Amino acid sequence: MAGFREECGVVGVVGDKEAANLIYLSLYALQHRGQEAAGIVTLNKEGSFSGHKAFGLVGDGFNKDILDKLEGKVGIGHNRYSTAGGKMVQNIQPFSFNTAIGSLAIAHNGNLTNASQLRKDLEKSGSIFQSTSDTEIFMHLLARSNEESILERIIEVMKVVKGAYSLLLLTKDRLFALRDPFGFRPLVLGRRGEAVVVVSETCALDLIDAEFEREIAPGEVVEIHNDGSVKSYFPVESSRKAFCSFEPIYFARPDSQIFNEEIYELRKKMGAILARESHVDADVVIAVPDSGVPMALGYGNQTGLPMELGLVRNHYVGRTFIEPSQSIRDFGVKLKLNPVMSCLKDKRVIVVDDSLVRGTTSVKILRMIRQAGAREIHMRLGSPPITHSCYFGVDTPERSQLLAAQRDVEEMRDFIGADSLGFLSIEGLKEALGAANSHNYCYGCFNGDYPEDTGREIEPQPTDDRGPGLRSGI
Amino acid sequence: MAGFREECGVVGVVGDKEAANLIYLSLYALQHRGQEAAGIVTLNKEGSFSGHKAFGLVGDGFNKDILDKLEGKVGIGHNRYSTAGGKMVQNIQPFSFNTAIGSLAIAHNGNLTNASQLRKDLEKSGSIFQSTSDTEIFMHLLARSNEESILERIIEVMKVVKGAYSLLLLTKDRLFALRDPFGFRPLVLGRRGEAVVVVSETCALDLIDAEFEREIAPGEVVEIHNDGSVKSYFPVESSRKAFCSFEPIYFARPDSQIFNEEIYELRKKMGAILARESHVDADVVIAVPDSGVPMALGYGNQTGLPMELGLVRNHYVGRTFIEPSQSIRDFGVKLKLNPVMSCLKDKRVIVVDDSLVRGTTSVKILRMIRQAGAREIHMRLGSPPITHSCYFGVDTPERSQLLAAQRDVEEMRDFIGADSLGFLSIEGLKEALGAANSHNYCYGCFNGDYPEDTGREIEPQPTDDRGPGLRSGI
Amino acid sequence: MAGFREECGVVGVVGDKEAANLIYLSLYALQHRGQEAAGIVTLNKEGSFSGHKAFGLVGDGFNKDILDKLEGKVGIGHNRYSTAGGKMVQNIQPFSFNTAIGSLAIAHNGNLTNASQLRKDLEKSGSIFQSTSDTEIFMHLLARSNEESILERIIEVMKVVKGAYSLLLLTKDRLFALRDPFGFRPLVLGRRGEAVVVVSETCALDLIDAEFEREIAPGEVVEIHNDGSVKSYFPVESSRKAFCSFEPIYFARPDSQIFNEEIYELRKKMGAILARESHVDADVVIAVPDSGVPMALGYGNQTGLPMELGLVRNHYVGRTFIEPSQSIRDFGVKLKLNPVMSCLKDKRVIVVDDSLVRGTTSVKILRMIRQAGAREIHMRLGSPPITHSCYFGVDTPERSQLLAAQRDVEEMRDFIGADSLGFLSIEGLKEALGAANSHNYCYGCFNGDYPEDTGREIEPQPTDDRGPGLRSGI
Amino acid sequence: MAGFREECGVVGVVGDKEAANLIYLSLYALQHRGQEAAGIVTLNKEGSFSGHKAFGLVGDGFNKDILDKLEGKVGIGHNRYSTAGGKMVQNIQPFSFNTAIGSLAIAHNGNLTNASQLRKDLEKSGSIFQSTSDTEIFMHLLARSNEESILERIIEVMKVVKGAYSLLLLTKDRLFALRDPFGFRPLVLGRRGEAVVVVSETCALDLIDAEFEREIAPGEVVEIHNDGSVKSYFPVESSRKAFCSFEPIYFARPDSQIFNEEIYELRKKMGAILARESHVDADVVIAVPDSGVPMALGYGNQTGLPMELGLVRNHYVGRTFIEPSQSIRDFGVKLKLNPVMSCLKDKRVIVVDDSLVRGTTSVKILRMIRQAGAREIHMRLGSPPITHSCYFGVDTPERSQLLAAQRDVEEMRDFIGADSLGFLSIEGLKEALGAANSHNYCYGCFNGDYPEDTGREIEPQPTDDRGPGLRSGI
Ligand SMILES: Nc1ncnc2c1ncn2[C@@H]1O[C@H](COP(=O)(O)OP(=O)(O)O)[C@@H](O)[C@H]1O
Ligand SMILES: Nc1ncnc2c1ncn2[C@@H]1O[C@H](COP(=O)(O)OP(=O)(O)O)[C@@H](O)[C@H]1O
Ligand SMILES: Nc1ncnc2c1ncn2[C@@H]1O[C@H](COP(=O)(O)OP(=O)(O)O)[C@@H](O)[C@H]1O
Ligand SMILES: Nc1ncnc2c1ncn2[C@@H]1O[C@H](COP(=O)(O)OP(=O)(O)O)[C@@H](O)[C@H]1O
Ligand code: SF4
Ligand code: SF4
Ligand code: SF4
Ligand code: SF4
Ligand SMILES: [Mg+2]
Ligand SMILES: [Mg+2]
Ligand SMILES: [Mg+2]
Ligand SMILES: [Mg+2]
Repeated sequence: MAGFREECGVVGVVGDKEAANLIYLSLYALQHRGQEAAGIVTLNKEGSFSGHKAFGLVGDGFNKDILDKLEGKVGIGHNRYSTAGGKMVQNIQPFSFNTAIGSLAIAHNGNLTNASQLRKDLEKSGSIFQSTSDTEIFMHLLARSNEESILERIIEVMKVVKGAYSLLLLTKDRLFALRDPFGFRPLVLGRRGEAVVVVSETCALDLIDAEFEREIAPGEVVEIHNDGSVKSYFPVESSRKAFCSFEPIYFARPDSQIFNEEIYELRKKMGAILARESHVDADVVIAVPDSGVPMALGYGNQTGLPMELGLVRNHYVGRTFIEPSQSIRDFGVKLKLNPVMSCLKDKRVIVVDDSLVRGTTSVKILRMIRQAGAREIHMRLGSPPITHSCYFGVDTPERSQLLAAQRDVEEMRDFIGADSLGFLSIEGLKEALGAANSHNYCYGCFNGDYPEDTGREIEPQPTDDRGPGLRSGI
Repeated sequence: MAGFREECGVVGVVGDKEAANLIYLSLYALQHRGQEAAGIVTLNKEGSFSGHKAFGLVGDGFNKDILDKLEGKVGIGHNRYSTAGGKMVQNIQPFSFNTAIGSLAIAHNGNLTNASQLRKDLEKSGSIFQSTSDTEIFMHLLARSNEESILERIIEVMKVVKGAYSLLLLTKDRLFALRDPFGFRPLVLGRRGEAVVVVSETCALDLIDAEFEREIAPGEVVEIHNDGSVKSYFPVESSRKAFCSFEPIYFARPDSQIFNEEIYELRKKMGAILARESHVDADVVIAVPDSGVPMALGYGNQTGLPMELGLVRNHYVGRTFIEPSQSIRDFGVKLKLNPVMSCLKDKRVIVVDDSLVRGTTSVKILRMIRQAGAREIHMRLGSPPITHSCYFGVDTPERSQLLAAQRDVEEMRDFIGADSLGFLSIEGLKEALGAANSHNYCYGCFNGDYPEDTGREIEPQPTDDRGPGLRSGI
Repeated sequence: MAGFREECGVVGVVGDKEAANLIYLSLYALQHRGQEAAGIVTLNKEGSFSGHKAFGLVGDGFNKDILDKLEGKVGIGHNRYSTAGGKMVQNIQPFSFNTAIGSLAIAHNGNLTNASQLRKDLEKSGSIFQSTSDTEIFMHLLARSNEESILERIIEVMKVVKGAYSLLLLTKDRLFALRDPFGFRPLVLGRRGEAVVVVSETCALDLIDAEFEREIAPGEVVEIHNDGSVKSYFPVESSRKAFCSFEPIYFARPDSQIFNEEIYELRKKMGAILARESHVDADVVIAVPDSGVPMALGYGNQTGLPMELGLVRNHYVGRTFIEPSQSIRDFGVKLKLNPVMSCLKDKRVIVVDDSLVRGTTSVKILRMIRQAGAREIHMRLGSPPITHSCYFGVDTPERSQLLAAQRDVEEMRDFIGADSLGFLSIEGLKEALGAANSHNYCYGCFNGDYPEDTGREIEPQPTDDRGPGLRSGI
Repeated sequence: MAGFREECGVVGVVGDKEAANLIYLSLYALQHRGQEAAGIVTLNKEGSFSGHKAFGLVGDGFNKDILDKLEGKVGIGHNRYSTAGGKMVQNIQPFSFNTAIGSLAIAHNGNLTNASQLRKDLEKSGSIFQSTSDTEIFMHLLARSNEESILERIIEVMKVVKGAYSLLLLTKDRLFALRDPFGFRPLVLGRRGEAVVVVSETCALDLIDAEFEREIAPGEVVEIHNDGSVKSYFPVESSRKAFCSFEPIYFARPDSQIFNEEIYELRKKMGAILARESHVDADVVIAVPDSGVPMALGYGNQTGLPMELGLVRNHYVGRTFIEPSQSIRDFGVKLKLNPVMSCLKDKRVIVVDDSLVRGTTSVKILRMIRQAGAREIHMRLGSPPITHSCYFGVDTPERSQLLAAQRDVEEMRDFIGADSLGFLSIEGLKEALGAANSHNYCYGCFNGDYPEDTGREIEPQPTDDRGPGLRSGI
């Protein structure tokens, strides 16, 4: 379900003479983590950086000529998410900058929770900010540090910043890969022959024929030398882990392994448990493609109901289209999805999607299914109701726009026009994640219980106390 | 499976003041029928034409400013397929031209079988051809005709040309929709309020909120006046019908209805019959997405085997990507598809796709599945072996490149690296199409039995006599 | 003076393995003859054509990649003039087309006077026109001819068409260069090593290091074989010559030799005779740059008055600029020219330009000079008053917009705001062109005496009889 | 003569509701001061900045849509010069940045001589530089200052920086215009109704119909409030003035008034004195257009020799053109200039240009003139030999590439292939600038006598002691 947006994908390559090509392909594989812009910086033989940044998809903004100019065996790349707000070229990462101890380039996935205070302090003492991004705070802190070595500077900075960061830092002779102590965002390490590769998700390793080696641990700093040797440091203590549970639910690609899990299998489990928790009698199960497909398969298997291709996802979505002035009903959704009448007509339909954020899209999808002749529509979501915002690297709507923060399940059911509505419970979600691991996850947006002070005062809201969980609306 | 390429989608709108917008959206819905280029021509109030043509997807080549300039309540549009050969702007349709009886614009889906002879004759008598397209032959014949009225000229031309055409012809006060006597390519009529809409597939009607009215019949000429009134003529006799059986197998969108059938249901039937004809014991069924999905669902239902998302289709396919010089194995396929290891590892896998043309892509897909750990791979195709070329509007490889024209099933199995290989038989295909209708279809590319002389001498080839059918390679 | 616009420049190269590069550079040298669009077609080894066409200047529309694809040792190119009307890609030359005797490409500078009748006849018999250009008439006539050889076809066509054409025709093994019997437009032949080059003006030969050999004669057909051998034919009789006198006055570059004359010297002579005919006492002579410079130099030499740079021509003209809504006075002219106050302040100024068409620009220039402080302004034109339109390849305003067709000299003086106004007389112009040659020129736009029936009825206008000549308005 | 390159043009407008349009037009008028890139920043009603920057000419990088988005009545603009080195978007000015006392935008023409030391210090204390430009040093110093008001900060900074700056600083409610104490680069103040305009040269005032009011003085800070009121401060003492003498020689447009002089008149005087100092008997004087024209006119007047248009400057220069692989002789120069044979053949020609930097272009021009048939070629330069680099805002070649730093006049004459060579002497130059003013100019590049320590050690070179002056090579 659209509404929650991942904020980035990152890639680093050390020791391959086609570093730029590999980064570019990895960014393509991680395109789902950010579509607004992409950038690559490589380290040339002479020790200087080459870079290119472009708005739009990586396949549109880069070409052979550009990649050929990005020489060097070491480099980093970044995909940026798409926001409604103004596009500024200064916000495209990687950022590169000079410090007294040399040139650095940085690519960051995450969000700092103490960013605004840090920024205010830095500006007061004369630092000039070029972008509106949290990432620049890392840069200024690194530049202002009085430590001698870059590693010591990194450690100093990690002690000051709070929040989520899976971050790559390129220097003249090394690549550093950092992950915050909670480990909100994924970051994995792979090998491709002699070369070392660091990426957000394993699907990028697959595309470039690299082998998955291991996750970078929460709180870990990995130092990768140009010769391929790797050192590991744990400079900050990590009281608990807090993997983002929305990564397995929605963000990550189903063919990725992150947080040491197979995403596809987790999603099927969520679908199966969802069925167990909330099944009603029906004729057919359909998914809202593509994100709903694995959960719908799990749901179908669990119930024995046939899964059908009730909604076809257009292959050419992703572009904006002009709507006629005599408005077409549910235009935005129709551009993406079209119902297959024979699966729906006169049927009792279970519609499975991953999550419900604003609910506006679901309204349209359900209306479309209803118009195609469905007799009953039972909406099932493979995740709990979203009642709170995220402060750890996810672009979330205002709380006032989160459907579940404003309404109870019955009201939501009514709003989206379903005959019944069911969510996976938090317990169900934890069951899917596994007893051994579920305490290592963050569920902040489902229950307001953030692993760390978010630096923002959370205003009490009447709907707050309702909390998450399944409230079938039948 | 890539290899056979549809040659076009067409759209006509009469009587809507946002004709250009509706044509544009319809072309977007028909984008799968042609991605090389798109064009729109509208009829202005003053009786002149406005037009715009652009290479690439319709969403890239058109924008609000352009559409606003395409004034008028009547117009036609065209999507062109992508060929390897040189792109020429002259080949983008609709074509417009002047004749002694006024200006005309034309959009054509199909291929003439006597094109080269007609072209030669016309050139000899001084006609100048601008494009390499068959469509221009219509133009010259219409321009040279001595008949008074445009309808008579159309009829004269229909008596001369042979082959496949679903064609729209725009004049200063009417739109004509023509379909060849065999009805190779689809063409359907819809209504949107007062307006009349003609499109290749019903999925385009869905997007613009138009209602499906009926198929335009083989051999029919439909004359649509600017006031919305519709007349129908049958100027040429139709000895038999010959709907392209590849439309339900692959070309059409699964959510379309053409040839008075629901495509999705036909595909599920093909998958179910395929299972009946060729099933082997296995652990899991997967599709080659997206075209293989409906058949795999049918296959799974028939056998009771769970269908899994064994291959994930990247959402950003469609662009060319630069391959590193140290070649990545199966690069082209990897850009599009990635295996989900947990579905495949140590499993006996049935892989369902719609058809097998050259086999080169299947080789790579199967190798990828094998590398992901599959224990056995059983490839199943929802259509018979393709042994012959098509001369009716489909871009087919040379016969020497058609795998089934060169090898028997065992050799094919070996070539693609499967443990077993099974095709739907022609009888099975006919069964899926239905006893009442199956004789109305063309099966030329499966058995060389073309409904009409193709004008091309068909060279005998050693593999010819093998014919279609299931030849399990186990 | 803007207002009369040359309609094209043409280039042909035979026998140089970098034909496309040389054509491209020649088009750059001939850019003043057409800025709307440029095109190049070359003949590949395999006997097929490659081509590229682009709107805008040749330096913007072509690049190395494009030129590299235009293989072959033989080719033609064309610069198109800029018109107010709609830009259509179909109108960009060279045109290429197929006939029963092979493929042809054509590039044409000029205008046919019997075009509309020929076009009507051709359309009636079924020819389809793609462009609005006269040039297409050549194509259809060549395609429809029943002659066996291309040379005979050319001769047949030359007997039918009337008007102005300096034309290049490329076949699979030869280049033909044709010039109409009057020789309105220039066409010269050069050599570059083994290669033969045909261009509109010699300045193009200079740029590519080719040597000028000779003019192609009025009525001549030059046949250039791929081996560099040249044959000459004179298939149509030429009763008289009619070189466009506006070429030496304005169109041609001052560094060119055409019509066997040095343009710069002719212009200086026009300026000197103008001074003899119309001088008044003054302090300084200035040119309207750049076209007025050579005449102003001639004028200054003749009178002994110092010539000054009273108006500076901006180096970046040629782009459209946005005018603020609180309109800037004489904005359009200011973008191009700026006065140098110290040359003008309190001075009696003689302003020399080549010609006066609509007069609207002169109004602004003179107002600017007046504002800079000039005490007296004496406008002098190096050509006679323009009282008639041109039908031979020049884009002329409606007669109603030709200042001299509507007003006498005193009225014109008043209109443009000069203290006196003087034109070169027709006799003076003939004197500059030389007694031996002046009868070989066309003066149609100055006196309505066209060398050939223009096919258009010339409406009598009250100002017609006034005729050209100096009418000092002091 | 190419070789010395101006580094920028600046514009500021306060109090006009079409500020962006006026800045854009002014940048067009100042395009000769920088062609690599242009930028505009305006101050919106809400007190925030809008901006746009683009590579290339201002007419290419800006359009109506862009300008319409640059709302506000106050703004600044900047043209950047073209360097061989890498283009970086970060280097396009105006720069904008946040400080503790608000947002600022800056546009700078000039060069600091203590830039590298200031930069090193700032980097050491943690400032992050985004560009390689000196201008950023201003930004960081302004941001780090502890003064309360922006004016006090500016004054603090002016006491620290050394070198050349004509600089505009935009704040939320005021525009500051600064000029360094030496006044190296021009900066003038104009009025347009209520609005105040600051530009590098008066030619920009002419285009937008603004009236010249006065020069901004060396060492002056002008504070312009949004209501149009203007205050002036002189915070730093100015021991001497040092107007760049190369501005009147070459950089400024001939129609500009800067340093309280008419550039055109100065150039004519330089030409006349040059003639007095170095004339030889000859038949004709020609200029190297366009920069050489005023001096050639002065030279011609002084000697009574006729000036001719011996070289024609192509109107479409400025683009790069592809050279054929069989190299064309003097290709680069031929793209720009073409000789007029009739002025040169068998003549003794005096060729006047403004200056001689590397000499490489002159070699080609003279060879071209020689090939056109000149009997003798006497090269005359309207400025002294350039023996030293500039450190005050001019992009100069390495000293090793300055012809006059390496060779004496006879060697130079031989190198460029002239029959004689003459330069204006420094005394002659001072005479042209006027006894009363000549001590207010910088002649550093002619004699190494810089008005200020350049911060760079000037290596002794054998040719140093030769000094400037006329050394006729006859
Ligand atoms: N082929 C696929 N099949 C299933 N899920 C996919 C596939 N590709 C991407 N995804 C997942 O689906 C998400 C995108 O969901 P989708 O439903 O297509 O769009 P939306 O963002 O509008 O929900 C991705 O973030 C990824 O997790
Ligand atoms: N969402 C969808 N689900 C299933 N089939 C689809 C879908 N969209 C398009 N199709 C069908 O799949 C064909 C495209 O097949 P696909 O497998 O995606 O690519 P390929 O052409 O490489 O086989 C289309 O022609 C259409 O028939
Ligand atoms: N450098 C030059 N000096 C003098 N005349 C030139 C030059 N370049 C081109 N010309 C001539 O000037 C004409 C262009 O004239 P110009 O005054 O620059 O513009 P306009 O077309 O507005 O009069 C060209 O057609 C050509 O004949
Ligand atoms: N129309 C003009 N006439 C004379 N000088 C000019 C004109 N326009 C610009 N200039 C001056 O000429 C310089 C550009 O010189 P030019 O000879 O055209 O090119 P180059 O930079 O190659 O010498 C400008 O910096 C300006 O001082
Ligand atoms: S609040 Fe929600 S989206 Fe944010 S990190 Fe926690 S689980 Fe993920
Ligand atoms: S030959 Fe095959 S592809 Fe062609 S029309 Fe017949 S069934 Fe369709
Ligand atoms: S009418 Fe004038 S412009 Fe036309 S050809 Fe004759 S002289 Fe030239
Ligand atoms: S050194 Fe030369 S170019 Fe630099 S400021 Fe002084 S005079 Fe001008
Ligand atoms: Mg989704
Ligand atoms: Mg497929
Ligand atoms: Mg002119
Ligand atoms: Mg110059």
